[in-house]
Amino acid sequence: MKSLFEPESIAVVGASSDARKIGHIVLYNLIHSKYRGKLYPINPKASEILGLPAYTSLTAVPGKVDQAVVCVPNTLVPSVMEEAGIKGVKSVVVITAGFKELGKEGAMLERRVGDIAKKYGMRVLGPNCMGLMNTHHFMNGTFTNIQPVSGSVAIASQSGAVCSSLLDWSTATGVGFSTFISVGNKVDIDEADLLEYLKNDPNTNVIGMYVEGANRGRELMRQLREASKNKPIIVLKSGRTSSGSKAASSHTGALSGSDKVYDAAFRQANAIRVNTIDEMLDLLQVFSNMPLPKGDGLAIVTNAGGHGVMAADACSDHGLTLASFEKETIDKLKGYLPAAANCYNPVDVLGDASADRYEFAIKTVMEDPNVSCVAVLLAPLDTVDISEVASHLATFAGKVDKPVVGAFVGGTKTNEGIKMLQDAKIPCYDSPDRAIRALGAMVRYKRMKDNPGDDEPVLVDGDKEKVKEIIKAVRASGRTSLSESEGKEILMAYGVPVPQEVTCATADEAAKAAASIGFPVVMKIDSPDIAHKSDVGGVKVGVSSESAVKAEFELMMSKVKARVPGAHINGVTICQMVKGKEVLIGMTRDEQFGPVITFGLGGVFVEIMKDVTQSIAPLTRSNVDNMVKSIRSYAILTGARGGRAADIKSLKDVIVRIAQIALDFPEISELEINPLMVGDEGKGTYAVDALVVLRREN
Amino acid sequence: MKSLFEPESIAVVGASSDARKIGHIVLYNLIHSKYRGKLYPINPKASEILGLPAYTSLTAVPGKVDQAVVCVPNTLVPSVMEEAGIKGVKSVVVITAGFKELGKEGAMLERRVGDIAKKYGMRVLGPNCMGLMNTHHFMNGTFTNIQPVSGSVAIASQSGAVCSSLLDWSTATGVGFSTFISVGNKVDIDEADLLEYLKNDPNTNVIGMYVEGANRGRELMRQLREASKNKPIIVLKSGRTSSGSKAASSHTGALSGSDKVYDAAFRQANAIRVNTIDEMLDLLQVFSNMPLPKGDGLAIVTNAGGHGVMAADACSDHGLTLASFEKETIDKLKGYLPAAANCYNPVDVLGDASADRYEFAIKTVMEDPNVSCVAVLLAPLDTVDISEVASHLATFAGKVDKPVVGAFVGGTKTNEGIKMLQDAKIPCYDSPDRAIRALGAMVRYKRMKDNPGDDEPVLVDGDKEKVKEIIKAVRASGRTSLSESEGKEILMAYGVPVPQEVTCATADEAAKAAASIGFPVVMKIDSPDIAHKSDVGGVKVGVSSESAVKAEFELMMSKVKARVPGAHINGVTICQMVKGKEVLIGMTRDEQFGPVITFGLGGVFVEIMKDVTQSIAPLTRSNVDNMVKSIRSYAILTGARGGRAADIKSLKDVIVRIAQIALDFPEISELEINPLMVGDEGKGTYAVDALVVLRREN
Repeated sequence: MKSLFEPESIAVVGASSDARKIGHIVLYNLIHSKYRGKLYPINPKASEILGLPAYTSLTAVPGKVDQAVVCVPNTLVPSVMEEAGIKGVKSVVVITAGFKELGKEGAMLERRVGDIAKKYGMRVLGPNCMGLMNTHHFMNGTFTNIQPVSGSVAIASQSGAVCSSLLDWSTATGVGFSTFISVGNKVDIDEADLLEYLKNDPNTNVIGMYVEGANRGRELMRQLREASKNKPIIVLKSGRTSSGSKAASSHTGALSGSDKVYDAAFRQANAIRVNTIDEMLDLLQVFSNMPLPKGDGLAIVTNAGGHGVMAADACSDHGLTLASFEKETIDKLKGYLPAAANCYNPVDVLGDASADRYEFAIKTVMEDPNVSCVAVLLAPLDTVDISEVASHLATFAGKVDKPVVGAFVGGTKTNEGIKMLQDAKIPCYDSPDRAIRALGAMVRYKRMKDNPGDDEPVLVDGDKEKVKEIIKAVRASGRTSLSESEGKEILMAYGVPVPQEVTCATADEAAKAAASIGFPVVMKIDSPDIAHKSDVGGVKVGVSSESAVKAEFELMMSKVKARVPGAHINGVTICQMVKGKEVLIGMTRDEQFGPVITFGLGGVFVEIMKDVTQSIAPLTRSNVDNMVKSIRSYAILTGARGGRAADIKSLKDVIVRIAQIALDFPEISELEINPLMVGDEGKGTYAVDALVVLRREN
Repeated sequence: MKSLFEPESIAVVGASSDARKIGHIVLYNLIHSKYRGKLYPINPKASEILGLPAYTSLTAVPGKVDQAVVCVPNTLVPSVMEEAGIKGVKSVVVITAGFKELGKEGAMLERRVGDIAKKYGMRVLGPNCMGLMNTHHFMNGTFTNIQPVSGSVAIASQSGAVCSSLLDWSTATGVGFSTFISVGNKVDIDEADLLEYLKNDPNTNVIGMYVEGANRGRELMRQLREASKNKPIIVLKSGRTSSGSKAASSHTGALSGSDKVYDAAFRQANAIRVNTIDEMLDLLQVFSNMPLPKGDGLAIVTNAGGHGVMAADACSDHGLTLASFEKETIDKLKGYLPAAANCYNPVDVLGDASADRYEFAIKTVMEDPNVSCVAVLLAPLDTVDISEVASHLATFAGKVDKPVVGAFVGGTKTNEGIKMLQDAKIPCYDSPDRAIRALGAMVRYKRMKDNPGDDEPVLVDGDKEKVKEIIKAVRASGRTSLSESEGKEILMAYGVPVPQEVTCATADEAAKAAASIGFPVVMKIDSPDIAHKSDVGGVKVGVSSESAVKAEFELMMSKVKARVPGAHINGVTICQMVKGKEVLIGMTRDEQFGPVITFGLGGVFVEIMKDVTQSIAPLTRSNVDNMVKSIRSYAILTGARGGRAADIKSLKDVIVRIAQIALDFPEISELEINPLMVGDEGKGTYAVDALVVLRREN
């Protein structure tokens, strides 16, 4: 990747003397960013472009070429790739558009580009991208005409337009970039590759990503998780909602995946997911300029009570607490501020506050041990000299070891103050809510950084051979859906407890089995053709005598036969009746991320309240803990309302085992236990039902 | 109120020649806003101020004085008020601070001001306010030095600082004000008074309010509801969260009330509540400049796919739908736009789009019958001429009958485009999310306007005399808590069904009663001293024979006596066992708004999932319908998951009756039925429990 970010020489293929051409702008940008390596314009018809000697082709270049930036028409790209391969170019940036995003033919052309790169061992960025810049390497290989500020934010964006918005934003806010990568169609290099480089890039302190769809979900998670240990990563993943996803696939043909799965992936990887571009920009501003807070205590200093109240509201919304000041702090404030001022949090320095008064208040609250971060609010009252306050703040707010942000609320007058602070690298926003939201994200990141959770997944052993046999038998019978008892055998092979049960072919057999298991029992129809047994009268709970078992056996058989005429019926299963709280554990497979484990309380909680959580396997101990705790109805499991605490320990154990089955058997496409009965603490769990579906074979 | 908003003459009491004094600025502002009525500076020491003859006192003014604006020190205000009364002044604006907001003494002074006003029949705005302006009456009676743009937005704000932020914002965005009222401490005139005037003010099309606490909750609701039938009202109520409320009361001493109750009040009044000041500003911008959309179908036109995806995401977040275009629309777009353009929604006019291409696309989608509003997105790509697009848009976007908003996403370059559009009265924002959020609010308001719900509350009759008797008897016994059976008698008096039950003093009596009601029965201890019966072993469900009733009677008595030694026990109540879904209906009283009715599904849904809703009584039919539908678990009542539909009709009837009890008996401070058993459709409901608490008498 060094040849991508820090090339010693660059050839611009398709360089042009025509100032309107991309091949001209890229070369111009490279020259004007003061690129220090060798630069070779390639153009079959020119001998010199922008003062540099031009070459007819890559192979005609005398020295070695680390990187080629390609701006020729799409149909010519494959031949340029071949040439680059022959020349020994290490990385190729294909700016040219007209590939996958145009449909089938474009996708074929793109595959050819990828294949040639592989053949020669070259890395490719793009196609259909804006290029790449590394301000610390004095290299702007993009075709934008906005000259970005240098700084510590690295950007990787799947949309060139988002790149241009970010660049324009950086010139307004003064937030500077270390590297800026437009990933385009990602025929080769994707976000995961970039993170691998960026996590060790000493010039990058924050990473911002705009993603429409991941190529290699698992690798992206791994790299995000590694990188986020040292650097905050703000991810804007669009195509969140169904209407958004539709727009995403017509845009770049990216596979958007289910949004809940992305949510789980980013959460498990400790990335900071944002939902809107304004939030992304707000967070980049604060992370690139301010130190991390040590705790969540916020002090507010304001010249306006109303804005203080709004900031306090925002405080609860964004996970901060309004710090309680030490007596010493309050006394110190009282000694300096006018009598009418409020010396408690939010500190109201009053409408006629001078810059000195602001400074005194800010410095005083900053010394309070309960304060971890400060928001400075300003309303453009006639009595306040905004530029004086801003310039004063600018001189000291960046030098303290706790983050300080401004919220100057207004328009014409406050915008000048905001600009002054931003120029001085003090984040400043136009509303209390945005300022507090930015600080809230810092607090959340600090917590993740201090406690990133386990890295090692919990792995357990299971009887793989047994499961293989069951699957083989099912395949042999031409099915993909397993019967309940087959499903339960798989669970048992992996140590998931199931209630005792015997499938019986006759009523007498059933009565005998029930007597040996102990009454009451549950009776269920056993048929591979019936997924929802209770809908067809195939389940009876609490049957409590031998005679009742016999009667129900006949009744159930006749009902089910009448309702599902063609179904193959193995008999009726007599099951031990188990007690506890019903939960659901499920597994589906995501194309990008692999096995997704779903957990929630059973019944209405899952189906109506939608109170479920997802995680991607393999699961770490922390993943499992977080899953169980994160459902809204968690208190029901811990024994709220005088109920008994459930056996959460063995519930977690089952989650781990289901994840293991999913990992060991990729041919299982779906698995669900609904319900798993979780007994009281120490009493274990029982999988009362099991639904297992195999992937269709081609 | 005419004397407040359209006075024929104004005296500025405390007018001054000293340009730093508020009394100077107010007079200056009145002169410079070209006020056309008579203006009288009042100052005991000056003969002329700012070119106008000054008078020593109000009574010394030769002509009549409609309005007095008071800027003298706080201790002098009462005497000025007396003078104003004698002079026959109709309304007084007290700008002076130093009243309730400073504590007890200030509050006393404020009360005196209010009393004097009442004595003379004068209306008072303030004290501790910024004053009032009415741009259409050429009257700026505030002390701000920002000269606002004239327009159609009326503002009423409880914070002067928020006023100054709004004024500064208006000069930046060009959004103009009709009237601007800083309400201050509201000793007399409050938001409800202002709404009464503003709803009929022909110059006002939108109303924005910043509220920290209401004085007359019910009247505010009434006026909001009336006014919102014709004009959207955007309310920012701060002090939402507990930390916010704390800041609010230290700020103005306002009673913040419970936020959930405010939420219910604004919802029932069809006001548009926003949570942050940026949202308020965004909404004012769109409502003041654009016509209401007819439906919720949004068309997106963008030069950048990525931004289109984000806008589509925002669409679902804010209650819009991405419109499906007619074939005709798509064909027309295909005929004009380049081949690579996306002609489906979001329409991508491509990075090199000219202003013409934008115009063609916008006009085309605007003609589509499925499109009700349009968002125009722009990324500052090098290939786009932002000012050309903006100036072009400016010429036609305001003339169409569907709302159009812009989202120009970037910084330096896009801000210029935003400014151009705002100058042309086209709302424009810096992110797709903000633009779509603003349109979403318009769609919501349009829906409310078209279907504002009933105005008339549902009132029912009850046996008032019976309830009075019960309450009298409880009072006579020195209690405020009613026993369950007393509570149920009240319910029955108002037609709320309760299960059959008889309180029995002996085990034999109990057995007999149970036999007559029919088995199984529920047994409950009857004691006014025990609120939570089941906690002390005082409830037994499903007792199914006479002998079991006898045994349980003795057991329960001994258990309860042992656990609550001092309790007075009337006996054991034998109740009919009823079936159905458990819901909770409760009533508490809010100091501002009166009876608040709470509804939710019983048990864990209320206690753990917090799935409840509130409304303020009296309730209209629509209020009740909305309450029942608005809980997340509503589907359980309609018979989701193969369950039976509950008797929602009689559930609603009980809600109405509880509201009626609350309205008829203000001395009942709290009432709760938990659970109310709602039977299957047509089977009615039964109040299984009843908790009634009376207000303590002084």
